[in-house]
Amino acid sequence: MTQDSDEQAESAWWSTAIIEMEPGIIRYRGYPIEELIGKASFAQTIWLLLRGELPSDDQAALLDIALMSAVDHGPQAPSIAIARMAASCGVGLNNAMASGVNALGDVHGGAGEQALAFYQQIAARIDEGAPLEGATATVLDSFMASGTTYLPGFGHRFHPVDPRAPRLLEMVDHYAEKGAVTGRFAAIARCLEAVLARRKGKAIPMNIDGATAVIYGELGFPAPLARGLFCLSRSVGILAHAWEETQSGRRNKGPLPRERLWRYDGPAKRPLP
Amino acid sequence: MTQDSDEQAESAWWSTAIIEMEPGIIRYRGYPIEELIGKASFAQTIWLLLRGELPSDDQAALLDIALMSAVDHGPQAPSIAIARMAASCGVGLNNAMASGVNALGDVHGGAGEQALAFYQQIAARIDEGAPLEGATATVLDSFMASGTTYLPGFGHRFHPVDPRAPRLLEMVDHYAEKGAVTGRFAAIARCLEAVLARRKGKAIPMNIDGATAVIYGELGFPAPLARGLFCLSRSVGILAHAWEETQSGRRNKGPLPRERLWRYDGPAKRPLP
Amino acid sequence: MTQDSDEQAESAWWSTAIIEMEPGIIRYRGYPIEELIGKASFAQTIWLLLRGELPSDDQAALLDIALMSAVDHGPQAPSIAIARMAASCGVGLNNAMASGVNALGDVHGGAGEQALAFYQQIAARIDEGAPLEGATATVLDSFMASGTTYLPGFGHRFHPVDPRAPRLLEMVDHYAEKGAVTGRFAAIARCLEAVLARRKGKAIPMNIDGATAVIYGELGFPAPLARGLFCLSRSVGILAHAWEETQSGRRNKGPLPRERLWRYDGPAKRPLP
Amino acid sequence: MTQDSDEQAESAWWSTAIIEMEPGIIRYRGYPIEELIGKASFAQTIWLLLRGELPSDDQAALLDIALMSAVDHGPQAPSIAIARMAASCGVGLNNAMASGVNALGDVHGGAGEQALAFYQQIAARIDEGAPLEGATATVLDSFMASGTTYLPGFGHRFHPVDPRAPRLLEMVDHYAEKGAVTGRFAAIARCLEAVLARRKGKAIPMNIDGATAVIYGELGFPAPLARGLFCLSRSVGILAHAWEETQSGRRNKGPLPRERLWRYDGPAKRPLP
Repeated sequence: MTQDSDEQAESAWWSTAIIEMEPGIIRYRGYPIEELIGKASFAQTIWLLLRGELPSDDQAALLDIALMSAVDHGPQAPSIAIARMAASCGVGLNNAMASGVNALGDVHGGAGEQALAFYQQIAARIDEGAPLEGATATVLDSFMASGTTYLPGFGHRFHPVDPRAPRLLEMVDHYAEKGAVTGRFAAIARCLEAVLARRKGKAIPMNIDGATAVIYGELGFPAPLARGLFCLSRSVGILAHAWEETQSGRRNKGPLPRERLWRYDGPAKRPLP
Repeated sequence: MTQDSDEQAESAWWSTAIIEMEPGIIRYRGYPIEELIGKASFAQTIWLLLRGELPSDDQAALLDIALMSAVDHGPQAPSIAIARMAASCGVGLNNAMASGVNALGDVHGGAGEQALAFYQQIAARIDEGAPLEGATATVLDSFMASGTTYLPGFGHRFHPVDPRAPRLLEMVDHYAEKGAVTGRFAAIARCLEAVLARRKGKAIPMNIDGATAVIYGELGFPAPLARGLFCLSRSVGILAHAWEETQSGRRNKGPLPRERLWRYDGPAKRPLP
Repeated sequence: MTQDSDEQAESAWWSTAIIEMEPGIIRYRGYPIEELIGKASFAQTIWLLLRGELPSDDQAALLDIALMSAVDHGPQAPSIAIARMAASCGVGLNNAMASGVNALGDVHGGAGEQALAFYQQIAARIDEGAPLEGATATVLDSFMASGTTYLPGFGHRFHPVDPRAPRLLEMVDHYAEKGAVTGRFAAIARCLEAVLARRKGKAIPMNIDGATAVIYGELGFPAPLARGLFCLSRSVGILAHAWEETQSGRRNKGPLPRERLWRYDGPAKRPLP
Repeated sequence: MTQDSDEQAESAWWSTAIIEMEPGIIRYRGYPIEELIGKASFAQTIWLLLRGELPSDDQAALLDIALMSAVDHGPQAPSIAIARMAASCGVGLNNAMASGVNALGDVHGGAGEQALAFYQQIAARIDEGAPLEGATATVLDSFMASGTTYLPGFGHRFHPVDPRAPRLLEMVDHYAEKGAVTGRFAAIARCLEAVLARRKGKAIPMNIDGATAVIYGELGFPAPLARGLFCLSRSVGILAHAWEETQSGRRNKGPLPRERLWRYDGPAKRPLP
C-alpha cells in the first residue's frame, strides 16, 4: 500500500466489509457483481450482504420462503394503513414505503425479533445440558414473571389459527429431513406451544412471527435481523398497497370520517383565563 | 486565510450561510448564540435561520400567529392519524413525529404553498399594471382551465366556514394598520373569495391554508417555505397526539377494526395454476 | 350478500383487491397463503401482489435478477449514508431503513422510473409506425430540448462503464431467446446508447437504472413501479449497512468531521441590532 | 347524550382530550381557536396542546427560550446532514424534514430526555429527605456503575464549553428570581457539574441538552417530552438547512467523494463457489 492509501485508511470515515468499489468495479463481499448476476438469486444476495458468505441452495430456499410469507396482512396492520394514507397525500412511492416501514417498531414488527431471542435463550440452556421441556418451562416462567400477558410469536388478535404458521413449520421439517437445518428451533417452538396450551387450558398457536422466527433461527440469523428481514418482507405489501391507493384517485385519505373515528373527552368549551 | 483554510475551502463538501462554528463558538447568521438567547424569540430565530436577518417585532408577532394557528386538526388529518398509529407501534416519539410530517405532501400540507404561489401570480400581474379584480380573474381562469375542481386555500371538506381564517385576516388587517405589512395579499385573497362566490353562486370561504398563505405572503416568504412552516406548525399537534397515544397504553393501533375498515374487491378464492 | 355485508360495503373506508382476510383465512389475490407457501417464490409473490396474477417461471427469474442487481452501491449513495448515520443515532433498524428509503426521490432512485418512461415513449411511437432509430432520435430530441444535460439511465458519475449493465442486458437477451420476453426494450435502450454515443462523440453507456428499466419494461411494469421495485431492492443494502453500523459500536456518526465537511460563507460576526 | 352519541362513544376508535371539532368549530382543550389566535403565542399553544392548560407568561417565555436555543448545530449533526442529503435527492421539503427528525433517537436527541430523567431521580431523593450533594452523588454513582463513560447533559465532543449552557442557566436564574420557577433543577444540575469536575479532575461543563433539560424540568415537563420538544426545536434548523440545500442547485449530494469517505475491509476479490 502506498502512503496515499495509508492516509486514506486513516482518514476514511466509514469502514465496511460489504461492498468494494472502484470505477468500473463493484464487488459484494469480494464477489464481482457481474459474476453474481444470473448466478446468485435475490435471496442468496440478501444473505450474502447480511452474513458475508453465500448460502447453500437449501438455505436460500428457506430464506425465500420466510420472506414471501409475511409480505402483507391488510390495512388493519398499521404499516399498511400508514402507507395507504401517505400515498393518498401525494407523497412519492418511496416516501409512502418509508412511512410504512417506519412504523414497524417493537410492537408491530418486533415480535419476530423477540420470539427468536426467546428461542435462543431456551437453546442456550439446552446447550448447557437442560432438557428441552425443562429449558422451555424455565425461560417461559421468568419471561411471564415480568408481568407480560402474551408471548411474542404465539396467539393472534385476529386469527384463531394463523394459516401461515403450520405450513411454514412443514417447510422447516422438509429442510430438516434434507439435513439443511437441524430442526432444533422448530422443536423449541413446538414445545413452547404445548407448554402454553397446557398452562392456559386452551391452544395459543404459533403465529407468523413465531414461525418465521423459527426459520431465521434455523438459518442462524441474530434476533435483530429477524426484524430487519420482516421489514424487507413487509415492504412488499407496503409497496403494493401504496401503489393501489395511488391508482385509486382518492385524495387526502384520512382513516375515517370524523364521527366514527374519534371522540373528544377533554374539557368542555371555556373562555380564556 | 492560510493555505490550510484555502484547501479546506476547496475540499469542504457543503457550504452554508446559516451557522458558523468553532469550539466554544456558535453563531447563527453572524449573531453569537449567547447573545440571541433571551433577546430573540423562537419566531425571530425561525425567521433568522430561514431568511438570514432578524425580523421586526411586528413581523415576528405575525409569524408567531401563523405558526400557532395550524398546529392541529384532529385525527382525521392523515398526519395526525399516522402519528397516533406509529406511536401505538412502540417507535420513539421522534419517529412518530417524523412519520406524521412525512405525510405532509402536495395533497395534505401543500395547499398553503399552492395558495401562496397563486397569490404571487396575481401580485405579479398587478405589478405589471393590471387592476386587482382583473388580475385575479385572469389567473383564476387559467388555473381553472387546467381542469381543477377546487382552489387551494378556499373551501373545506369539513367546515362551512373555517373558524381560523376570519380571525387570521383580522390579525393581518391589524398589522397592516400598524404599517408592518402592506395588506396586499389580504386584498388579493379577499378578492379571490369574492370572485369565487360570484362564479359559484355560493360562498367558498378562505380556509387555514389560504389565510396562513396570506400571512406568509405579507411577510415575504417564498411559496415552498409556506409548506415548510406549515410542517413546523403541524409538528406540534403531531407531537401532542403521539404523546397522548403513548400515554393511553394502547398497542398496535390500526386505524379501525377490519370489518369497518376495508372491503375486498379482488378475485374470489381460486387454486394455484 | 346479506344486508350487513351491503352496509359494510357502503361504510368500508378502503377497498383493496390485494388481500382478503377472515379469521383463519388469508388470501393474496384469491390464492390461499398456505398454498402459496412452498410454491410461490419471493419474486413470484412480489409480482402477484403488484400485478394481480402469478408470473411465469421465466418472468419471475428475470424479476429476481433485476432485484438482486441494485441492492447496494456503497456509502456514497445518500440512501446508504443516511441509513448508516441513522443507525449510529440509536434508532431501530426499521427506522434506519425507513430513513434510507425516504431519500430515494426523483434524483436518487427516480432514474429507473424516468428511463422506463422514456423507453415507453419511444415504444409508443414505434407502435404508431415509426422506425426504431427515428423514434429514438425524436424522443431524445424533445427530451434534450427541455435543457437537461443528462439522460436518465445512461452515463455514471463514478463508473466509466457500470459493471452491472452489460451483464443485465445479457440476461435479457437470454430470456428473449427463450421467448419469455420480446427484447423490444433492450433494442430501444441499445439504440439510445448508440445515438447518444454518436451525438456526444464518446460512449455514454447504460447504467444500472437504464438496465433495470429495460427489464421492468420487458416484464410490463408501469414506470412508477420501476421506482418502487428499486426501493425494494435498495432496501437490502440499506438494511445491511445499517446493521453493520449498529455492530460497529460507533455513536452519533455524522458524515465527517467538521473541518472537512462544511465551510461557512455567511455574514461575519456581528452584534444584534 | 342521545343514543346516537352513546353509540358513537362506543364505536369511536381514538379518544383525545386535545381537540374538539364540529363543522365550523375547533377548540383546543376547550378554548375556541378563534379566541386563541392573537392571544396565545406559539409557545403558549405548544404548552396548551402538550399539557392541557395555558401557561403563565413567564412559563411561556422560558419555554420559548429553550425552544430557540437548540434549533441548529450544523451539518456535523446527523439530523442536519441527513436533511441536506435528502433535500439534494429531490424529495419534498416535508420529506427532508421527516428524514432529519427520524434520526433524533436515543443517541442523537435523546440526551435531553436522559438528563432530565437523571435530574428527576435526584429530585426524588431530595424529596425523601436527602441533602442535595448526597442525592447527587448517590444517583451519579449508580449511573456510572452501569459502565457508562459519559453523563448525558455534560461534556461535549466539540465544545470545551458549550456557549449555550451558561446563558440558559442565567435565564433560569432570572425567572427563579421572579418566582416563576423554583430553581431546584438548576441547583441539581450545577451540583452535578461540580461533583463531576471534582471526580474527573477537570471541568465537564453542562451542554445544551443538560441546560434545556434544566428548563424543561423547572417547567414540569415529563422527561420524554424533553425529547419531543428538542425535536420541535431542531426541526427549525433541519428545515433551514434543507431549504438552503434545495436552493443550491446541487444534485444527489452524498456526504463525500468515495476515496475520502469509506474504506473497504472485507474479503479480497474471489470467485464464486
